[in-house]
Amino acid sequence: MTRVTCCQIPLAIGDTAGNQTTSRAAIEDAARDGAQIVVLPELASSGYVFADRAELESLAETRDGPAITAWANLAEAFDLTIVAGFPEAAGDAVYNSAVVVDPTGVRGVYRKAHLWDTEHNVFDRADDLPLLVDTAHGRIGVMVCYDLEFPEWVRAVALAGADLLCAPVNWPLLPRPDGERPTEMVRVLAGAGMNRMPIAVCDRAGVERGVDWVGGSVITDADGYPVVLAEYGTPDRITADLDLALSRVKRFNDNNDVHGDRRTDLYRRTPLLD
Amino acid sequence: MTRVTCCQIPLAIGDTAGNQTTSRAAIEDAARDGAQIVVLPELASSGYVFADRAELESLAETRDGPAITAWANLAEAFDLTIVAGFPEAAGDAVYNSAVVVDPTGVRGVYRKAHLWDTEHNVFDRADDLPLLVDTAHGRIGVMVCYDLEFPEWVRAVALAGADLLCAPVNWPLLPRPDGERPTEMVRVLAGAGMNRMPIAVCDRAGVERGVDWVGGSVITDADGYPVVLAEYGTPDRITADLDLALSRVKRFNDNNDVHGDRRTDLYRRTPLLD
Repeated sequence: MTRVTCCQIPLAIGDTAGNQTTSRAAIEDAARDGAQIVVLPELASSGYVFADRAELESLAETRDGPAITAWANLAEAFDLTIVAGFPEAAGDAVYNSAVVVDPTGVRGVYRKAHLWDTEHNVFDRADDLPLLVDTAHGRIGVMVCYDLEFPEWVRAVALAGADLLCAPVNWPLLPRPDGERPTEMVRVLAGAGMNRMPIAVCDRAGVERGVDWVGGSVITDADGYPVVLAEYGTPDRITADLDLALSRVKRFNDNNDVHGDRRTDLYRRTPLLD
Repeated sequence: MTRVTCCQIPLAIGDTAGNQTTSRAAIEDAARDGAQIVVLPELASSGYVFADRAELESLAETRDGPAITAWANLAEAFDLTIVAGFPEAAGDAVYNSAVVVDPTGVRGVYRKAHLWDTEHNVFDRADDLPLLVDTAHGRIGVMVCYDLEFPEWVRAVALAGADLLCAPVNWPLLPRPDGERPTEMVRVLAGAGMNRMPIAVCDRAGVERGVDWVGGSVITDADGYPVVLAEYGTPDRITADLDLALSRVKRFNDNNDVHGDRRTDLYRRTPLLD
């Protein structure tokens, strides 16, 4: 079994020192609780609600920057694999990125391919495929927030053999019917079940410039049901023990296989890739 | 607004006369309640749990058979569009099909492309694309049960302009965690929201040869939330008034569009159609 923890921490726009203190404390708590894989929110180093491109640029860092270095040091100290979001400076571009660090250092960086709303005004849109990193715990796939709402993207990472999909998110709080889970979470549950691939989503807390967040962190099983859900709208930490070897088994009865049953012969005749 | 009704009726294997009586009564009730589109379950004429291919063949009918003729007569009498499942005899083949009838007669037949479990032992697998029928109420897409669990298939019918997806199903009752909706329903809700296309799912009641059913009929809105849900495990009828013109609006904020945001340039570089 692999112990996976999502740290639904509060973030404050622009307070890189404070955010780093918050994420370090959360990672240390998770490690003390036996976590092996830790997921932090989208843009965990910087916060999310940038006033403009200039502010984003001032908060962005390169792959050897201070936040990633701190996370890598914690990964080494506690024998963790950590997935966390940060604004990535790359030449003149700034991407909404997520890094994977483990005890050996930086294992990979993914740049968000599907930008949400006003992210279009400040971020560059990347052409990355979903990141896949082979770790001691299995193959980890990585994407960021709105990426999850494209079933083609979730399918792609599952078809590429991800045993666990880790997704830093910042889910803005939007209206929903009473008693309903947010549609973003429903889409995650569906994507997990339709691919027999657990998904660990780390959302956030902390109002920024009038924007509040769902606080909808969730860790699913391969059947598409939640193993553990965070408390909405508040800092929380959720943990699940997952048997990631089960993710390799796409068959679920004598005659059906979530991937083997795909009619790619027919999908080619649809507008799927037009 | 268009009034859509799903008739979660009990079915009995082999009792074609009884099933016809049941579906006629349900359709008449729906019509009296102002329904314009009526969805019946998968294999509504025959029941589902066939002992063998011979029994299925004995219950199958052609496109001008008695069940379809009866539904077409009801569609004409009450000015309805009816979507219903039936076992279709076509030469030596038998398909798990769904028909669309309206006051002008048979508008189309769809043959299930993704077969569930022991259906492989009795049905022929079809090579149909999802059916699209232009009606007075808008463009209706049709697929059957397990088809819904392939996001490529739901995406395809939405990209082809369906304003409403109608899906006859027989969802077998499988274990799920307490308090959770069945994963099949979660996948439907996700598919609706990710495509901004309402989905009307008609499930069934009535134990057959030891197999029980979810009874999870649901009509969703374009946001991916349920408008109305049937009571689990029992005969029921659910109705929703939907503004199907909204299905044409795939944009949902100033910067995002569920279809326009798709990164087909990148999906082509993934194993999506391999």
